[in-house]
Amino acid sequence: MAQEAWGRWGSEDEIGAPNLIGPEQVRLAAALVRTGQVISLAQPISDRLPVPGHRAGVMHFMGRDGGDYAAGAKRPGGFQFSEDTIVLSMHVGTHLDALCHAWCDDHLYNGFPGSTVRSNTRALRCGVEKIPPLVTRGVLLDVVRLRGTVALPGDFIGLAELKAAAEYAGVTLRDGDAVLIRTGWLESQDPKQGVDFNTEPGIDMEAALWLAESGVAMVGADNFAIETLPFPPDTIFPVHQRLIRDYGIPLLEGLVLRQLAEADAKEFLFFAAPLPIVGATASPIAPVAVL
Amino acid sequence: MAQEAWGRWGSEDEIGAPNLIGPEQVRLAAALVRTGQVISLAQPISDRLPVPGHRAGVMHFMGRDGGDYAAGAKRPGGFQFSEDTIVLSMHVGTHLDALCHAWCDDHLYNGFPGSTVRSNTRALRCGVEKIPPLVTRGVLLDVVRLRGTVALPGDFIGLAELKAAAEYAGVTLRDGDAVLIRTGWLESQDPKQGVDFNTEPGIDMEAALWLAESGVAMVGADNFAIETLPFPPDTIFPVHQRLIRDYGIPLLEGLVLRQLAEADAKEFLFFAAPLPIVGATASPIAPVAVL
Amino acid sequence: MAQEAWGRWGSEDEIGAPNLIGPEQVRLAAALVRTGQVISLAQPISDRLPVPGHRAGVMHFMGRDGGDYAAGAKRPGGFQFSEDTIVLSMHVGTHLDALCHAWCDDHLYNGFPGSTVRSNTRALRCGVEKIPPLVTRGVLLDVVRLRGTVALPGDFIGLAELKAAAEYAGVTLRDGDAVLIRTGWLESQDPKQGVDFNTEPGIDMEAALWLAESGVAMVGADNFAIETLPFPPDTIFPVHQRLIRDYGIPLLEGLVLRQLAEADAKEFLFFAAPLPIVGATASPIAPVAVL
Amino acid sequence: MAQEAWGRWGSEDEIGAPNLIGPEQVRLAAALVRTGQVISLAQPISDRLPVPGHRAGVMHFMGRDGGDYAAGAKRPGGFQFSEDTIVLSMHVGTHLDALCHAWCDDHLYNGFPGSTVRSNTRALRCGVEKIPPLVTRGVLLDVVRLRGTVALPGDFIGLAELKAAAEYAGVTLRDGDAVLIRTGWLESQDPKQGVDFNTEPGIDMEAALWLAESGVAMVGADNFAIETLPFPPDTIFPVHQRLIRDYGIPLLEGLVLRQLAEADAKEFLFFAAPLPIVGATASPIAPVAVL
Repeated sequence: MAQEAWGRWGSEDEIGAPNLIGPEQVRLAAALVRTGQVISLAQPISDRLPVPGHRAGVMHFMGRDGGDYAAGAKRPGGFQFSEDTIVLSMHVGTHLDALCHAWCDDHLYNGFPGSTVRSNTRALRCGVEKIPPLVTRGVLLDVVRLRGTVALPGDFIGLAELKAAAEYAGVTLRDGDAVLIRTGWLESQDPKQGVDFNTEPGIDMEAALWLAESGVAMVGADNFAIETLPFPPDTIFPVHQRLIRDYGIPLLEGLVLRQLAEADAKEFLFFAAPLPIVGATASPIAPVAVL
Repeated sequence: MAQEAWGRWGSEDEIGAPNLIGPEQVRLAAALVRTGQVISLAQPISDRLPVPGHRAGVMHFMGRDGGDYAAGAKRPGGFQFSEDTIVLSMHVGTHLDALCHAWCDDHLYNGFPGSTVRSNTRALRCGVEKIPPLVTRGVLLDVVRLRGTVALPGDFIGLAELKAAAEYAGVTLRDGDAVLIRTGWLESQDPKQGVDFNTEPGIDMEAALWLAESGVAMVGADNFAIETLPFPPDTIFPVHQRLIRDYGIPLLEGLVLRQLAEADAKEFLFFAAPLPIVGATASPIAPVAVL
Repeated sequence: MAQEAWGRWGSEDEIGAPNLIGPEQVRLAAALVRTGQVISLAQPISDRLPVPGHRAGVMHFMGRDGGDYAAGAKRPGGFQFSEDTIVLSMHVGTHLDALCHAWCDDHLYNGFPGSTVRSNTRALRCGVEKIPPLVTRGVLLDVVRLRGTVALPGDFIGLAELKAAAEYAGVTLRDGDAVLIRTGWLESQDPKQGVDFNTEPGIDMEAALWLAESGVAMVGADNFAIETLPFPPDTIFPVHQRLIRDYGIPLLEGLVLRQLAEADAKEFLFFAAPLPIVGATASPIAPVAVL
Repeated sequence: MAQEAWGRWGSEDEIGAPNLIGPEQVRLAAALVRTGQVISLAQPISDRLPVPGHRAGVMHFMGRDGGDYAAGAKRPGGFQFSEDTIVLSMHVGTHLDALCHAWCDDHLYNGFPGSTVRSNTRALRCGVEKIPPLVTRGVLLDVVRLRGTVALPGDFIGLAELKAAAEYAGVTLRDGDAVLIRTGWLESQDPKQGVDFNTEPGIDMEAALWLAESGVAMVGADNFAIETLPFPPDTIFPVHQRLIRDYGIPLLEGLVLRQLAEADAKEFLFFAAPLPIVGATASPIAPVAVL
């Protein structure tokens, strides 16, 4: 397997494809603003957030709150306040995978040893704090609109379909783009019924490689893993391995794209700034489209 | 005490001053982009992040990592990955205070009862998830440049000084602006020596009210509490009470502003999207300036 | 409703029925040791521990481990070590409910206001740290043996049945006893199939009051809530309210009693020491029977 | 360095020296009960608990409390309750080190590879859940009484001194004993002044080996690390390595021994039951002496 982007931005690079966003891309993206409408692409975070079975649900605790005052807590100088703490897995809800999140053959993106990711140091290489704020052109590839219906769990979204979606959007992908793929998965879930994280529609390998070779800085989708679940036979997260490790492309999972699609967005100013959690394998994130 | 903004956007409003950012403000902000330089304004988050004594330090745990594979963990299909979990107080590092964070007289912004903020429900009113992504004009008020040195702990930054800073920036504040005040506090701390959160420079009440009356959507600073510590006699967080509760202005604390100042930024496209943590009293955030 | 034990040990008492264990009870209990067999009555704690839907599962993180060394971590002086952190709800697995855990009419055991239990102070009254280590006679009331089969979800275990179980054990209940009731619920669960915490066998009110009037210091069982679920019509945790609040009797839930029953234990030295977590509503606990 | 206890209880043994507590030891211990006085040896656990700088302080959160009801939370059927969650490092306060906690040369007690202790599995070998409840004779070795004053930080407590303390207690150590060493360290700390975990009195290697060769099942002390800090030149936790790894002796740290000493306890029934946290490197514990 080739490691297409290794060494492309120097042997010490830990940023990967976001390097493709330069000042020119930022200026062009800002120039896309037309209506000034701002759309959030993030799922709400709460203890009701569906999470895969092998991850822990969100815990959110108040350390001080209005109940304390109702119960008689002191109010020095009349002041009242509340504060809280969250226990949060980095890979639930809307989040951006860092380049240290997935690999194979004991080596991360750009050849860094997997052994640099440890309990006592966290990721010494390719932690999410190395990814700069992403400010670039966003492109919506709306498979739901193309199909006229949501893609079904297990569906592979292939090259032809992504190309058709780009054509519908009137967009030719270029260096630094943030591609957002709407499969319809998230919007068709009913949390009350439970969410099955073991099967979902996603892109296939050919589609993934086309995006990568098109120079995109980031790939996002409204599903749990960008790629199709279950995986093709004898593979485990093959698209993760290729995009993250070989191309240095961070993946943005769990996007909320329905409102963006309903606004008929095609290309737009895209913003996403991960929390610079040192050595983290991902960051919760609240990405934004500005139309 | 007046509650200047109560009812201004309707009796059910939980957004407050960010309502002042409309499509026009967004378009004007986007039009400010010149060089395309992107500057992050967030502190790194790690267990080394200084926190006030009454708050717990950050915990960050790996649930799976490269050490596991080095120790012999299975790699189904060759796949290797890492994942992690964070325990994070909402009010450490760079964070945006929600309108439910501070109040008095048992009533939050817009008159909602403080008793709507509870352990078992979290904030039913004015949680941080009610604040939309902030995309607007950012204005840097650089007190350090004005003074030629960092403000000292305990210093009050007053109206005249803020006005002078705005004049230096060549900016007249207007509805929807995000004001960022550089006091020099954070950049003059040495975490190895310990950080004293009990004394810091900040704005005084007159300055705060001028900002509020100028229509700003948000007030940020490179200190811990926007306002001066220790407080004026017989007051506790007086600026918090007035700006958050009476004007509905979220506060953005713990900003990193040195690089922005060194780039001689004055007005710019500002972007800050809180994590929509349902019922939270604040959100960790990675704000961005685009020059 | 009477509050039978209020004031019984003084108006400031926060211990309740464990006051009934005096030196005499301890000496008599120690004298019961015959074979020297030690049996643990605690469920293992792990992220596989079944928990009720409204509580969060256990999280357990390694902060340093053998994988770190396999990955190359330094070993100053040859020393290697591992350490870990747990995130644990107090009311999962085997745990002892404190007297501040359940109440009604805004008053806890002994008349303390419910408002003394707050986010910012935790329980100022009747926290689990107020319960001393319990060293007393344990009595096994084995309903499974009596019935020849496990009690079924929803079954009420009544007075006659408890009396028959005591008779089988050859025991007359007396002041300070720790009563352990084997319903068979826990041992008949299959965690792989999921555990239903909404229905279980338990004691009814008459049985509960008989135990309380018999002077027991503590009531334990191998189920989730001591009492039957679902509750009798128009009641919510009625036995909790009466035993904890009115009699000051801590409840020990989630016991593992099969091995104890298989050893044909009847009366024995019982030992259970809650972690003195200040202001906690319960404690995880590892109770022990010494035969 | 010899590994004295490896293989002693079979090649698969993960219990170590607690194997030395058999039924006979339990019966003899129970027979020591004279007055029936029960003394807890555990530190209170709260967010005020002093912790070493490299470990996180305790977090303790209420998920529901009396403040909620004061603020208007519903009380179905009149029922009110509170519940809470703790975030707790295993190595703060009073805790029992498991045999997987400390090692060298990549091998744990009994030769198990250190690589069996991983982030994703926790300790597959020698986790704290493998240690049975300890019910045995406790022996207080009271160095403070012997010296007439507390031992000072950095003091080495040697063989002669331990022997003199045993002689004072009138005790000859024997197989299965739980030895509790009072140095006076903990009782001489003032948490308000901060606690220095980098220097403390403790036992030296010769004393440690004498305890081990005497057949003790467990060694406890009222300090942070049993052994002296700072360590002898060119060593790091040498006593940990020898006792835990080579002799399979769990260490019980952070004991509260003053009350026990004031009761002039010498030998007594000792109880300590670790929480069976699967794969944990230690357990918080509330040990008990029964006089």
